[in-house]
Amino acid sequence: MNCKLNLSYDGTAYHGWQRQNNALAVCEVVEKAIKDIFGQFCEVTGCSRTDAGVHALNYVCNFDAPFMIPAEKLHLALNTKLPDDVKVKSGEYVDDDFHSRFSAKSKTYVYRAYCGEVLDPFLRNYACHFPFAVDIEKIKAVTKHFEGTHDFAGFMAQGSSQKTTVRTVNFLRAEKVDNIIEFEINADAYLYNMVRIIAGTLLYVGCGKIEGAEIPDIIASCDRTRGGITAEPQGLYLKEVIYE
Amino acid sequence: MNCKLNLSYDGTAYHGWQRQNNALAVCEVVEKAIKDIFGQFCEVTGCSRTDAGVHALNYVCNFDAPFMIPAEKLHLALNTKLPDDVKVKSGEYVDDDFHSRFSAKSKTYVYRAYCGEVLDPFLRNYACHFPFAVDIEKIKAVTKHFEGTHDFAGFMAQGSSQKTTVRTVNFLRAEKVDNIIEFEINADAYLYNMVRIIAGTLLYVGCGKIEGAEIPDIIASCDRTRGGITAEPQGLYLKEVIYE
Repeated sequence: MNCKLNLSYDGTAYHGWQRQNNALAVCEVVEKAIKDIFGQFCEVTGCSRTDAGVHALNYVCNFDAPFMIPAEKLHLALNTKLPDDVKVKSGEYVDDDFHSRFSAKSKTYVYRAYCGEVLDPFLRNYACHFPFAVDIEKIKAVTKHFEGTHDFAGFMAQGSSQKTTVRTVNFLRAEKVDNIIEFEINADAYLYNMVRIIAGTLLYVGCGKIEGAEIPDIIASCDRTRGGITAEPQGLYLKEVIYE
Repeated sequence: MNCKLNLSYDGTAYHGWQRQNNALAVCEVVEKAIKDIFGQFCEVTGCSRTDAGVHALNYVCNFDAPFMIPAEKLHLALNTKLPDDVKVKSGEYVDDDFHSRFSAKSKTYVYRAYCGEVLDPFLRNYACHFPFAVDIEKIKAVTKHFEGTHDFAGFMAQGSSQKTTVRTVNFLRAEKVDNIIEFEINADAYLYNMVRIIAGTLLYVGCGKIEGAEIPDIIASCDRTRGGITAEPQGLYLKEVIYE
């Protein structure tokens, strides 16, 4: 039975979702909990790799369950075996052809930055620290340039390879409340570090290190060196995975 | 020079403010940072003891500085020597007779509880988990009984001793947003575990384990066994210390 889980995890202690050598990955603790409950190893398919320190509010994964535990009890059973920083919010049984990654139509990420002078201790693992005066209106004025279908080669970590670097951003929003800046982006798929580089570029626009008027040209240039920093991983949250 | 600091700290990794045997206390990392900056040990006076795992949004302490670093630079200098979970928000020089604890007129604490079925991983160190249906209106109906001057002997950890157990609560408020219940209380002073016992008692009222109508009698009884649980420390935050 194809079982789909919706997880939330604090990525601080993990080296991302994907299994690594010599570092604990979120998928391993999920697979261990499944083994504890179902009595056998089941390989879990995740909706995306996430980097070390990146968080998830709603991460989707699926696995082939050897027998059926009622869907409404599944999360409770698995949570007894999971650490406090990884929790199953819900579980359900889905069609055999459902695949957490390939069935996804789009994903929404949130990126948080803290622009106060002294980083709030409670945000040290949950936002990047960007201690500069940020004009949110300058950022809001350029978000629309990222929307639509573009070649985002300039917003990909150098050295990564992809068949195509064209992606479609369905929306990109920016808000500032007190000292917290929050970006929200939805795209059909992402290049490696794409959200963090867009976030870093927007922060540079907000503090005046990059002129907003240059953004269309920076995107068109496909030149990684023209954008801003790759903003730190701890500000990034996978918020939602959208399926048909 | 009497130097007053306003700190924020995530208490997760600490055994409270006060120096302990064989356990790291917040005051020790503050005293170490002061020694690193001023070149000599200075004893730091805190506004209150806090228990292990308790947090502070604004904790006040003071020490006798051997020389003057400009007040507007003090927090930046100390923060270079402090870990990310303890930060100085501001510093100032005050009258010699200022004492962080004895000069305080009142203190405000916040207590947070999460009443969803599955504890949000991001709240595991920042709220207590109370996975029951809570009627916030039942709680709001009884908060006024705690306000005013009462003998709070029934809301003190058993075994602790005090000259008097009479305290004045200036206000007690309760709110619920989504699954998070938040209490805010201001009192002239507190008995040991008083806020956590009041929080536990209010949660019991909210879920029906204690009848709201019994609260005046429970307070008047001075009997610790009649109130609710001592709610867990990680939900407690020192929010503000009020001086003249």
